[in-house]
Amino acid sequence: VSIDPLITLTTDFGYEDAFVGAMKGVILSITPASRIVDLTHGIRPYDIKEAAFNVGTNYKYFPEGTVHVVVVDPGVGSGRRPVIVSASGHYFVGPDNGVFSYVYRHAGKELLVVHITAERFFLSSSSPTFQGRDVFAPVAARLAGGIDISEFGDRIDDFVSFELPLPERVGERKMRGQVVHVDRFGNAITNVTGADLRKLKGEGALEIRLREKKISLKTYYAEGDDRTLSALVSSSGYLEFFISRGNAARKFAISEGDEVEIIRV
Amino acid sequence: VSIDPLITLTTDFGYEDAFVGAMKGVILSITPASRIVDLTHGIRPYDIKEAAFNVGTNYKYFPEGTVHVVVVDPGVGSGRRPVIVSASGHYFVGPDNGVFSYVYRHAGKELLVVHITAERFFLSSSSPTFQGRDVFAPVAARLAGGIDISEFGDRIDDFVSFELPLPERVGERKMRGQVVHVDRFGNAITNVTGADLRKLKGEGALEIRLREKKISLKTYYAEGDDRTLSALVSSSGYLEFFISRGNAARKFAISEGDEVEIIRV
Amino acid sequence: VSIDPLITLTTDFGYEDAFVGAMKGVILSITPASRIVDLTHGIRPYDIKEAAFNVGTNYKYFPEGTVHVVVVDPGVGSGRRPVIVSASGHYFVGPDNGVFSYVYRHAGKELLVVHITAERFFLSSSSPTFQGRDVFAPVAARLAGGIDISEFGDRIDDFVSFELPLPERVGERKMRGQVVHVDRFGNAITNVTGADLRKLKGEGALEIRLREKKISLKTYYAEGDDRTLSALVSSSGYLEFFISRGNAARKFAISEGDEVEIIRV
Repeated sequence: VSIDPLITLTTDFGYEDAFVGAMKGVILSITPASRIVDLTHGIRPYDIKEAAFNVGTNYKYFPEGTVHVVVVDPGVGSGRRPVIVSASGHYFVGPDNGVFSYVYRHAGKELLVVHITAERFFLSSSSPTFQGRDVFAPVAARLAGGIDISEFGDRIDDFVSFELPLPERVGERKMRGQVVHVDRFGNAITNVTGADLRKLKGEGALEIRLREKKISLKTYYAEGDDRTLSALVSSSGYLEFFISRGNAARKFAISEGDEVEIIRV
Repeated sequence: VSIDPLITLTTDFGYEDAFVGAMKGVILSITPASRIVDLTHGIRPYDIKEAAFNVGTNYKYFPEGTVHVVVVDPGVGSGRRPVIVSASGHYFVGPDNGVFSYVYRHAGKELLVVHITAERFFLSSSSPTFQGRDVFAPVAARLAGGIDISEFGDRIDDFVSFELPLPERVGERKMRGQVVHVDRFGNAITNVTGADLRKLKGEGALEIRLREKKISLKTYYAEGDDRTLSALVSSSGYLEFFISRGNAARKFAISEGDEVEIIRV
Repeated sequence: VSIDPLITLTTDFGYEDAFVGAMKGVILSITPASRIVDLTHGIRPYDIKEAAFNVGTNYKYFPEGTVHVVVVDPGVGSGRRPVIVSASGHYFVGPDNGVFSYVYRHAGKELLVVHITAERFFLSSSSPTFQGRDVFAPVAARLAGGIDISEFGDRIDDFVSFELPLPERVGERKMRGQVVHVDRFGNAITNVTGADLRKLKGEGALEIRLREKKISLKTYYAEGDDRTLSALVSSSGYLEFFISRGNAARKFAISEGDEVEIIRV
């Protein structure tokens, strides 16, 4: 079994520039044995919520001890703090701007958030505009290399966590949620989980409505067709809308914030 | 020499979401020493033929023993079978939907296709919508980690293989083919190989025609110019149309399915 | 400390096709222990200057001894020479078309450029259209694997280096530069460095002008707002124009070649 440290990267840097490459160079200069995995660099520019969702639903597929670096950071260079989070057996490194909100929600009592202040771990030519390369990459490399989390700064408890848009109960048999993400295939993912659905009391069938229209619930994509909007509880555990072999969000003009109702009839 | 197992990934997941990252997390959780290489994740959504072409023309550049995972899978969750293919010294893991058609065509008698049924190798929380993460990634990791192919299920011989669009001979001196792929540079790749061209009998020159227009045959891109459509036999071994330093497919509105004629005059 | 060789890749191949994957297969077939890092594959097709900028400003973040492969090569197959460059403790492999101009500018007396002629190191089925896979990848793998640079060919001194667009002094208190790159966030990067700014004599404030309009100089992005164009000296050391949390180049129609004036008032 390899014990080489594992580091994932999630950013809004895209794939046109060499920003991500520079971060990897910094990491490998400090901790050459690091294995680096891209979670995604396709987060929409400055979209903290999209980054939070992607990291929060995927970190658990990596081994415990993995260091997850997240750089979606519109406030870079300003007063917002850089942090290391220890939660659920994983480490997270990034700005204290809410990007770890899902991680905080699922963390137990062992949650520890440290305000990174130990500048000796930063790149020496540190710039105020690219902390991904100059602060987060070297800190992640040193954390992955075995430096204890307490060496990087003091514990804080007033870290930033935004309200996750939770579905709203409207009586015992009804629930309102919303579309929170549209993926590459045009699947529109809501904030309603399979567990939420099971909480709706009653014996009747579940009725799912998007814009007053009833949507049929399926188990897998190929059960639907390419003209009729369908729904299923997807691999991430959330209710989503789809059409088979086509782009549902484009065809039906679904976008983030659209409201969904679920009724036990 | 490293003996760490090598796994390639080819999908239509794109680069905006964390689907590929999650698959890598699963692989590294099971077989931490795996080296993972992206072949491409830019396959057009649901385009099985494009995936088949990319995998079929490129797997041979990897060392023998490499495990190639291909997830272009519009039928995910339905009855289509997950398979492992052993062919030409390589392993392939993916859905039985024709995505390995080129691999089958070039395989010798040692071809072995196994229907994956051993659910003990799947992710425990397996979902019917993301088998890339829940079935193909863990199976590939275990195969790369040394589990014998026979452990995953029984041999099948009725695997799905689509008819590859082969060029058509029209008499001894003439051949008809078609454009099967347009790459990033706008080069339009046909299904006619250099070997096919050599089979056209006669002493005369080769005349290449696209839409009744004669196209001049070159050896390398810089021999052409940026206004005149030219052709060459490219690095993949196929006849392709190009302009130098420009996008031929866009400039001349060439697309997949366009017919090409080659005549020994 | 790992001593596995490190290879970076920079190309204009994009992410839709399997070109980059094939190069990685070739490298790992020859030198299996190679660690391969993508610097970027999003260089605009045939844009040698953009590749030169990206490689020239980022190679230094990697450890000494790294082999940087650059394939932006509109002249592939023609007479242009393949080269290995040894400079500043790093190796570079690619076409002799100016793509290493920034490397040459910053190199000291130890600069060595070798014309690659040893065909025994090429892929045996070498094609004239994809030297990234057939020449540069195998040469980089063998160089990273320990073959001495002198084995690949003879030293040359007439290598191609284009004039880098340097800012122009207009008297002691004034300078003219230009926008040379627009990044994913819409930041417009100029060829004027922070060091250039410090050379402008005088005690007065710096006045920055784009199209006759005065632009305010900030230290970090969040100091600006999303409606007013601002400037700062960015992490790459160059003066750039931006708006906070928005795309400055799109909003203000800034593009490469736009002129900037800096005046010590």
